[in-house]
Amino acid sequence: MRSIEWDDQNHRLMMIDQRILPGQLEVLSFDRYQAVAEAITTMVVRGAPAIGVAAAFGMALAGFQSGAHDLPGLKDDLAKADDMLRASRPTAVNLPWALGRINRLVQPFQGSAALLRKRLLEEAQAMAEEDVATNRRISEFGAVLINDGDTIIHHCNTGALATVDWGTALGVIRMAHEQGKRVHVLVDETRPRLQGARLTAWELQQYGIPYEIIPDGAAGLMMRRGLAQKVLFGADRVAANGDVANKIGTYMLALAAYDNAVPAYAVFPTSTVDLTLGSGDQIPIEERSQAEVLDIQVHHQPVMPQGATARNPAFDVTPHRLIAGLITEKGVIYPPFHRNLPEIILR
Amino acid sequence: MRSIEWDDQNHRLMMIDQRILPGQLEVLSFDRYQAVAEAITTMVVRGAPAIGVAAAFGMALAGFQSGAHDLPGLKDDLAKADDMLRASRPTAVNLPWALGRINRLVQPFQGSAALLRKRLLEEAQAMAEEDVATNRRISEFGAVLINDGDTIIHHCNTGALATVDWGTALGVIRMAHEQGKRVHVLVDETRPRLQGARLTAWELQQYGIPYEIIPDGAAGLMMRRGLAQKVLFGADRVAANGDVANKIGTYMLALAAYDNAVPAYAVFPTSTVDLTLGSGDQIPIEERSQAEVLDIQVHHQPVMPQGATARNPAFDVTPHRLIAGLITEKGVIYPPFHRNLPEIILR
Repeated sequence: MRSIEWDDQNHRLMMIDQRILPGQLEVLSFDRYQAVAEAITTMVVRGAPAIGVAAAFGMALAGFQSGAHDLPGLKDDLAKADDMLRASRPTAVNLPWALGRINRLVQPFQGSAALLRKRLLEEAQAMAEEDVATNRRISEFGAVLINDGDTIIHHCNTGALATVDWGTALGVIRMAHEQGKRVHVLVDETRPRLQGARLTAWELQQYGIPYEIIPDGAAGLMMRRGLAQKVLFGADRVAANGDVANKIGTYMLALAAYDNAVPAYAVFPTSTVDLTLGSGDQIPIEERSQAEVLDIQVHHQPVMPQGATARNPAFDVTPHRLIAGLITEKGVIYPPFHRNLPEIILR
Repeated sequence: MRSIEWDDQNHRLMMIDQRILPGQLEVLSFDRYQAVAEAITTMVVRGAPAIGVAAAFGMALAGFQSGAHDLPGLKDDLAKADDMLRASRPTAVNLPWALGRINRLVQPFQGSAALLRKRLLEEAQAMAEEDVATNRRISEFGAVLINDGDTIIHHCNTGALATVDWGTALGVIRMAHEQGKRVHVLVDETRPRLQGARLTAWELQQYGIPYEIIPDGAAGLMMRRGLAQKVLFGADRVAANGDVANKIGTYMLALAAYDNAVPAYAVFPTSTVDLTLGSGDQIPIEERSQAEVLDIQVHHQPVMPQGATARNPAFDVTPHRLIAGLITEKGVIYPPFHRNLPEIILR
């Protein structure tokens, strides 16, 4: 099953509700783009590649929802949907990338409104298929770097759930495992939303890959003790110089890797690269609700004092100097990134 | 109220149960050293200075528990209590330090068994009083380093609860606040036991010091954004070269501080220094139960998949090169620590 799938019979988008995994595996259906935008904001669907494809399907839904009979009317309605979907989350560039690709279909389109509606769906479906194929190519390039017996520290979730299927950083691990290499994963639990403990651990169980969950703060000690040979994580936006915005905590993980000469790789499709930004400091960082930090229980009892306040930046920026390589579907990119990354992207 | 207090009327040790704060404030009473050892192991009482003093009172209780009528019999019973208390937790050196100090009273003692029982209690009470006075001296030295308007990132809990009263790193913050400096604290929640979110946030509320809780992984981004001017944490054992064993996550926090030129200070009484260890790599690191990582809920629902396993090292070691200064009751010690730390300790 895919995290995102089009239901052809009912003309609906089906997405796994990632907020309630691993306790419950529930698939939600969407027939309105507004609900897709909300699902992106509330993290029913998350992961940079997944939200890009979800937004593309949202545009297809917007086409079907539009009551417009003529092309200009349809294009107006699509522009409104584009605005709403674009604003659903700020950091991952795959979202504007996917909407930009849809837009490049819509803007010059000259046929009938009915044909455009059909083309929108075909484009979203093509993007979903490409995402899976891209992830497999990424994973083949990445798996070459994994040695038999490696223990790998992984942050957040970058697996089938973060993409349409297969995954990026977790896809590399899965590919190495399928190639017969023995791998062990130390899963950063990834506070505050715990995507590592919830989703990555659950996926690894499905794949039969051995793992242990660690508090995010334990990764440094593990590397100092020589207990990990690689660090892998995904990306939500990569600047032209190779700086990587990714889930909060990635920067500190990369610092610990660098301090222990453990190579840290960011793994992502080239649709995650934003060549308009010279450095990661220009990447907008989403600040999410305090409740995501505060609302946890131990032994079913609240942990934080009543009236406590919190900060909840959802992403951070890892400077390129801490990163050993960028694993993409076009190959592994090595430093100097400011030269090699644009060259490979624009090739 | 103190976290540890002797009840003279009932000849019992009273300790706040730190496992159920901030939801409930409950004081437990102890009349057997075995129960004190268990309270240290299960973290009813935690914090390096606090567990040292708790162990000293445990020895006083062992004296009262002993049915021995003569001195050799009493000394035998005390040796058994020493063994059990010494094994209750491995990392904080304040525990063997406190037991060593009790031992230096017991070994050469030549008076009556009754007098030794009395002396044991007096020694434990003296250590409790000294702890409070020491913390205040530490805090006065440390507060000099805090500027009006500083935002300080603080890890774990080092306040009144981690000591007999007043605190070490949190004591510095409290002292600066009482001196009229405006300080703001970013409280590392400190997974897995969440001592920051539970205890430090609760203490800061009592003191009227403004704070926000952050996930441990967010400290790096905060510093990259220039939102913190100091990093403060305690210590469980400090090697002769200035390497600091402290709560898991401290090493990654110190890396982030160093990378952003934010000075990171370890704050501790000199009883936390172990000059027998040349470097921090020799410090024994406690590995605690997996359940401490796995047993959390969000919206009262379990987070981790059934059958998940975890690693739970309770401490890590921060290399001295990442530390700007060591704040002790004998003053602030600056690098090179391998020269200055032993010199000041042995002075």
